[in-house]
Amino acid sequence: MNWDIRLDKLNEECGVFGIFDNDGLDVAKLTYYGLYALQHRGQESAGIAVNNDGNIDYHKDMGLVPDIFSENVLNGLKGQIAIGHVRYSTTGASHRENAQPMVIKYKNGKMALAHNGNLVNAAEIRENLEESGTIFQSTIDSEVIANLISRYRVTNNNIEEAIEKMMGDIRGSYALVILTPRKLIGIRDPLGIRPLCIGRIDDSYVIASETCALDAVGARFIRDVLPGEMVIISEGGLTSIQTKVPDTTKLCIFEHVYFARPDSIIDGASVHSARKEAGKRLAIEHPVEADLVIGVPDSGLTAAIGYSEQSGIPYEQGLIKNRYVGRTFIQPDQQQRETGVKIKLNAIKSAVEGKRIVMIDDSIVRGTTTKRIVQMLKDAGAKEVHMRVSSSPIKHSCYFGIDTPSRKQLVAASHSVEEIRNIIGADSLGYLSMEGLLETPVGSKCSFCSACFDGCYPMEVPKEGNKFSCESNKQ
Amino acid sequence: MNWDIRLDKLNEECGVFGIFDNDGLDVAKLTYYGLYALQHRGQESAGIAVNNDGNIDYHKDMGLVPDIFSENVLNGLKGQIAIGHVRYSTTGASHRENAQPMVIKYKNGKMALAHNGNLVNAAEIRENLEESGTIFQSTIDSEVIANLISRYRVTNNNIEEAIEKMMGDIRGSYALVILTPRKLIGIRDPLGIRPLCIGRIDDSYVIASETCALDAVGARFIRDVLPGEMVIISEGGLTSIQTKVPDTTKLCIFEHVYFARPDSIIDGASVHSARKEAGKRLAIEHPVEADLVIGVPDSGLTAAIGYSEQSGIPYEQGLIKNRYVGRTFIQPDQQQRETGVKIKLNAIKSAVEGKRIVMIDDSIVRGTTTKRIVQMLKDAGAKEVHMRVSSSPIKHSCYFGIDTPSRKQLVAASHSVEEIRNIIGADSLGYLSMEGLLETPVGSKCSFCSACFDGCYPMEVPKEGNKFSCESNKQ
Amino acid sequence: MNWDIRLDKLNEECGVFGIFDNDGLDVAKLTYYGLYALQHRGQESAGIAVNNDGNIDYHKDMGLVPDIFSENVLNGLKGQIAIGHVRYSTTGASHRENAQPMVIKYKNGKMALAHNGNLVNAAEIRENLEESGTIFQSTIDSEVIANLISRYRVTNNNIEEAIEKMMGDIRGSYALVILTPRKLIGIRDPLGIRPLCIGRIDDSYVIASETCALDAVGARFIRDVLPGEMVIISEGGLTSIQTKVPDTTKLCIFEHVYFARPDSIIDGASVHSARKEAGKRLAIEHPVEADLVIGVPDSGLTAAIGYSEQSGIPYEQGLIKNRYVGRTFIQPDQQQRETGVKIKLNAIKSAVEGKRIVMIDDSIVRGTTTKRIVQMLKDAGAKEVHMRVSSSPIKHSCYFGIDTPSRKQLVAASHSVEEIRNIIGADSLGYLSMEGLLETPVGSKCSFCSACFDGCYPMEVPKEGNKFSCESNKQ
Amino acid sequence: MNWDIRLDKLNEECGVFGIFDNDGLDVAKLTYYGLYALQHRGQESAGIAVNNDGNIDYHKDMGLVPDIFSENVLNGLKGQIAIGHVRYSTTGASHRENAQPMVIKYKNGKMALAHNGNLVNAAEIRENLEESGTIFQSTIDSEVIANLISRYRVTNNNIEEAIEKMMGDIRGSYALVILTPRKLIGIRDPLGIRPLCIGRIDDSYVIASETCALDAVGARFIRDVLPGEMVIISEGGLTSIQTKVPDTTKLCIFEHVYFARPDSIIDGASVHSARKEAGKRLAIEHPVEADLVIGVPDSGLTAAIGYSEQSGIPYEQGLIKNRYVGRTFIQPDQQQRETGVKIKLNAIKSAVEGKRIVMIDDSIVRGTTTKRIVQMLKDAGAKEVHMRVSSSPIKHSCYFGIDTPSRKQLVAASHSVEEIRNIIGADSLGYLSMEGLLETPVGSKCSFCSACFDGCYPMEVPKEGNKFSCESNKQ
Repeated sequence: MNWDIRLDKLNEECGVFGIFDNDGLDVAKLTYYGLYALQHRGQESAGIAVNNDGNIDYHKDMGLVPDIFSENVLNGLKGQIAIGHVRYSTTGASHRENAQPMVIKYKNGKMALAHNGNLVNAAEIRENLEESGTIFQSTIDSEVIANLISRYRVTNNNIEEAIEKMMGDIRGSYALVILTPRKLIGIRDPLGIRPLCIGRIDDSYVIASETCALDAVGARFIRDVLPGEMVIISEGGLTSIQTKVPDTTKLCIFEHVYFARPDSIIDGASVHSARKEAGKRLAIEHPVEADLVIGVPDSGLTAAIGYSEQSGIPYEQGLIKNRYVGRTFIQPDQQQRETGVKIKLNAIKSAVEGKRIVMIDDSIVRGTTTKRIVQMLKDAGAKEVHMRVSSSPIKHSCYFGIDTPSRKQLVAASHSVEEIRNIIGADSLGYLSMEGLLETPVGSKCSFCSACFDGCYPMEVPKEGNKFSCESNKQ
Repeated sequence: MNWDIRLDKLNEECGVFGIFDNDGLDVAKLTYYGLYALQHRGQESAGIAVNNDGNIDYHKDMGLVPDIFSENVLNGLKGQIAIGHVRYSTTGASHRENAQPMVIKYKNGKMALAHNGNLVNAAEIRENLEESGTIFQSTIDSEVIANLISRYRVTNNNIEEAIEKMMGDIRGSYALVILTPRKLIGIRDPLGIRPLCIGRIDDSYVIASETCALDAVGARFIRDVLPGEMVIISEGGLTSIQTKVPDTTKLCIFEHVYFARPDSIIDGASVHSARKEAGKRLAIEHPVEADLVIGVPDSGLTAAIGYSEQSGIPYEQGLIKNRYVGRTFIQPDQQQRETGVKIKLNAIKSAVEGKRIVMIDDSIVRGTTTKRIVQMLKDAGAKEVHMRVSSSPIKHSCYFGIDTPSRKQLVAASHSVEEIRNIIGADSLGYLSMEGLLETPVGSKCSFCSACFDGCYPMEVPKEGNKFSCESNKQ
Repeated sequence: MNWDIRLDKLNEECGVFGIFDNDGLDVAKLTYYGLYALQHRGQESAGIAVNNDGNIDYHKDMGLVPDIFSENVLNGLKGQIAIGHVRYSTTGASHRENAQPMVIKYKNGKMALAHNGNLVNAAEIRENLEESGTIFQSTIDSEVIANLISRYRVTNNNIEEAIEKMMGDIRGSYALVILTPRKLIGIRDPLGIRPLCIGRIDDSYVIASETCALDAVGARFIRDVLPGEMVIISEGGLTSIQTKVPDTTKLCIFEHVYFARPDSIIDGASVHSARKEAGKRLAIEHPVEADLVIGVPDSGLTAAIGYSEQSGIPYEQGLIKNRYVGRTFIQPDQQQRETGVKIKLNAIKSAVEGKRIVMIDDSIVRGTTTKRIVQMLKDAGAKEVHMRVSSSPIKHSCYFGIDTPSRKQLVAASHSVEEIRNIIGADSLGYLSMEGLLETPVGSKCSFCSACFDGCYPMEVPKEGNKFSCESNKQ
Repeated sequence: MNWDIRLDKLNEECGVFGIFDNDGLDVAKLTYYGLYALQHRGQESAGIAVNNDGNIDYHKDMGLVPDIFSENVLNGLKGQIAIGHVRYSTTGASHRENAQPMVIKYKNGKMALAHNGNLVNAAEIRENLEESGTIFQSTIDSEVIANLISRYRVTNNNIEEAIEKMMGDIRGSYALVILTPRKLIGIRDPLGIRPLCIGRIDDSYVIASETCALDAVGARFIRDVLPGEMVIISEGGLTSIQTKVPDTTKLCIFEHVYFARPDSIIDGASVHSARKEAGKRLAIEHPVEADLVIGVPDSGLTAAIGYSEQSGIPYEQGLIKNRYVGRTFIQPDQQQRETGVKIKLNAIKSAVEGKRIVMIDDSIVRGTTTKRIVQMLKDAGAKEVHMRVSSSPIKHSCYFGIDTPSRKQLVAASHSVEEIRNIIGADSLGYLSMEGLLETPVGSKCSFCSACFDGCYPMEVPKEGNKFSCESNKQ
């Protein structure tokens, strides 16, 4: 299974989108475009919910956004407010019941929620809620969150107060959009681990995980939702409640390294620029004499351009990726692998033959795929392959919304750089330093969580990880 | 829409099935056969849940049983215990979220529930639960029931006690099957409004809405679950808890009139015999001089045989029904209706031409379809059409699991028999008397709810209906 | 596989339908209703073709009529003329390429054909055509027929002449509808082996395999297409060409025995009446002392009513058939069969217990299913089961459009009646005599092919069968 | 519709693949991988045919390769030889009947064919064949070819002779793979307009449209099929027949410009190198002072790297393309377009803001999309946008397998370069000269057809185009 090239990447778990219309826009269709732009954040399931005269209509299913929503389905989703969600699942046999948005009925009517992130104390809260008789129908955090909001709503005056109380209970990462019959609410966790931004189309508001979704719907970027901030959009316009936050922020650095789309801007820093900067710094930290710089498509390309620019070594396309990757692709069997079938990636022989190559990728997870690519280049005639990684060695699991394999599968958790070089068969190997990496998001208003690299979790985490004690990394 | 012949029937809402295996049986596949036998009780959605080492695996979807479950899907459902459900929905655009069994996680682990019936105080309980912060994700009673069990489980020693407490709260009709990791539980409401029976295959137990499902899986009938009884099947065998019940029972008489399959036996009475008896009594109550007796397929056929036997008038096939009825059938438009297209039912001209006909159906709901059939027979040359109905005029809505149209659509709610005769264009019309009807289930150990005929609801109901005051009908 | 109750029936291969509109009717939708009414003649694939300004649009696929055609698809099929086809296939893994109507382009434009029947010299014609370089893309006779018409059209003045020449070449059974951009043509083979009739809606014409399809679209019956007749419907109305025919006709008697719908009338004889008459004659030929007469649903019911009427033994419902039979139904495995699962058919215990039963079916093919039903009745408590078959023993394969198993699978081909009685476990067994059978279609203007019973093929057939020498049966 | 970015490309019509196994390989699965690698040549339908003991099994349908073939379907396709096809269709509502391979039965058994290219005299041959009574069931050239082979086979000794005769009749472009029960045959038209190459896995042979498909299945490249060559692979190995050819070759230059995958090598020239060379030449022919060079993804990227390398202007990613392009994507309506929704392509603001940009694309067809991209870059803050096109202005329709719009839609057919510059809103515009373009496929053993640029068709074409008189371009 490691054989599948896409599998040696960390996987984001979700993307969220919301829109409040004041201009006669088709909110379901714009949410469709927004989710389509966020599809890279989750390919397993997707859903859209719209308010409809006190009620909430929705459609969600397994699959890609264009496959789930037909013109007919979108036409059936009429309303003034919509939220949407794309999801990647960590479990093999995932149930449709886990698709979002979650739509619920509670004391004060209907509500829909969509969540990107991961709560580290979800199990504990579930247990507490179960102790008082609560039942759960899914395994997603949205259900925990909905239960808490619903409980707090009973004894509080409005949903904003209930949400604020809920935020006091949950710990972890969350970019949340909530739809009520008259409001669109966006919330970001106090450390700002997951991104969330605000845009505008004329008098209508949009909330999205990334600015690329604002572009997709023709909205102009207004600002990011602040860590710990709740923005409420209603007929009266946008209001904001700033909850108490620590004096640091911890945006997931991997958003810049791999997850986000290069055309997105997060907390003031361009993802594309960060990746290019990473390539440049990599060239300074790990120079090498070579003929060409190539990137592993698609996520290694930007850093490769940066490395080339800094080093003066020409940039080249050395690998070509099949554009038609489907979820249901039939994997080759052992015999076919031995024959050397090249399904998703292929080397461009005419470009790499006889050349000393610097190959850039954004990360190495298990190492198996990198090994195959190095071999592929050598088979195509590359004289040397110098591997450069535009982030640091991944040594720790993530508890904040990224699907990392167990530590024993992380090649860097138990191997030195030289051992990894040997495993992947490269002529040299260089990772970007932590210091270098954290400086790549030029202009960022946030500091970063880099726990997957250094184990410095920004809060207590359930299992394997270090406790909340890695003060040195606090910025 | 009334034009569609199937629409002028009352619709059952559900069928349930459960199996506890001690013989190495394939519980998912047997549940599949069981649900297939109960398909007439609900054609909208179906689902199967199995226990799997503390966990519960399940599959449910919209559609007919053979369409939802493939060999692959069934093979993925391995366990010792299974429950299943078929559902008819009263709402046009029904969400997949309402499909059953409902699978939940609560304090003491996982649980799956499937429910046939209707709670009359569900809204009230929901409100109470919402007052304490509970959220709801569907509109089905199973979610109410699961919440109550879960709450009571917190303060009670075992699930049986929790269920008993839950039974103290809910009012209405219910035949419930519950799956826990180690138990299969079957429950019937205190008045026994919906049927539920127990069967056995060697050392394995089966619970089902009707005995025809026992036959389908090769189980032999043991006994009915008693009104107010909870049967618990575990490794230790079958145990039973009898909760407090009123001194009367109220099996829905319409199970005998129309819903149940003729090969089922409910509370000691054969459905087939009841229908034949109804036909005989109808012949006595409403004799007529005629050449032929015919039944409206399929549900009027048995009573027609009974009428023929009693009256001596020959039984004949006068109407033929298309065997390939699909859910997605495209309805004819106005022009086509006027042309007289005969899609689902057709008269056999050679049988009815020049004849005086007694036509038997089990009930008349709106009257529109009956009118069309009478006309169809006359067009085919019938000299006279004498309509006989093997139950009484339906004048009241049901609150116990039957999808009755609103009272103003019930032709008998606002018209006299003579008026109805005139509307449907029959030469004469006779309904079976209430007295006659209630005596048709020969051998029944139960007395009956006949509220749809006489408005005597066995308990307080929410809206239109009479209060619990119709003493005369108590038996 | 024999285990499946439906498999022990002979299967018809096709049904055809055509309509020429002069009244602004929706021809595709009416063809849809027509095919729906003919669905019993073929459940494997279906298709509709319409003329469209010189072009022919069509849609065909595997599956049942209501599953293949959506409102959208039908709306895309606009024209003045339409033909349609339903097909049953004899091969397990049948290709979509064999679905009909076949749509072709030839010298004089486009043409669509749909065929019910079987050519006995198709292989020979194919060989001849192949000798001159013709290619074939399917295995259906329509392709042979289209090739012949196309060839003859080159040297003849009009399509009618080309068709007539084609009819001179082909031997076998055929009810054909042909669509050209301006004409609807219907053809019946010279012996009239397969039925074909003409109906009318105002100024529009309909052609169909059975009159039940005329009823379905609101058309009134005009007359049957005569054996060897070609009817041509165009703007100018209906014209007819009578080709040379033998002095006998040979309508397939099995149309009356089993294939056709009881509400159809074929060549002047009512199918329902024929079946009832068969039951009456059976009662005379094979009387027995018994308590009840029951029929095997659905095809044995009419004869059972006839037997009851003649014998005075009461008619009863003894078996109930599941109404939700799907193509994809998952078959039980050996263990489940042994458990006695009753999936498609079940006995009504309360009706048959302690009774001496006469059970009527229209035919016995392999005998395996009959054996299971007899056993089912005995298990349900029947004291005696007297099997009566409303046709004669099937001893020969059909070459004219019926899917008979090989002779060695036909139980009557190699066993005496007493041996069969023993195999099926009945207390007595009686078949209707050939003489009796051939007199059942009262009022028929045709005489009959009864080769499956007596081996007297109406023309030379390719293999197993007797030569064209069975003079005695000629009428 | 022009709005859709993908639509402003010329579209290839097909890709073909074939394999003859001598090593126990799974031919269907390898064909699946081969077609997957050729998916860029056709996304509308796909099919695989395998020989199976004299028979041919196949599966084909509308859709992408991974959607059409499941593990189950592939497992049902067992054989020693397989051919496959991917297809792009020029017609909106294309029938499944046009999917390939075409499988036929003819005098000498079964045969399957798959064709990439276009015959210019297909209509004429069809007419001739129709004159002798031949019928056609599709509109694809494969049916014409199959008919000719079949006819010639009658009077020739073997299929090779029949194919050679067929090649004498047809004119146009063709890369053909033919499957017979014992042979795999590959054919390339006398001018070599469409590519076709041969590879080998141990003792097994592969034929494919492009070498990237050889890589995909782990085959090593042997050689190209020569123009006018027929290669026959059988148990005895590979043999070859060279038919008479003109003294020039005419490989479609657009294979290098756009169609082929960059990792493919055609007739000795690397596609990647040709595109890079085009970029370099473009930099020489049309230099400009600028800050960045960017390519329009994906097909403009390679030339952009070449332009950057030659000019010394830094290469940058300025545009990002959504990776999840689906066939069924719902197009934005007028209002949404006006809002500026950016669905498939987005500018990277941080990269292009304030910059003078050279933007490279491989071609301009209608100009509408280019106009939108230029605007998008300017909206993102680009100071100047200098458009450079790595091929010449497209002024003529293609008759050899490329789906060009009608001439009036080709912006360069009726506008000067300056007019086009004005239409697309670029600050300058430069096309690669014909001379330059034709020299880009360095190492090519073929000369080229460049009729879409210069109208010099290599043979007489049916309509709009010039006659076969453009001698100057012959090489």
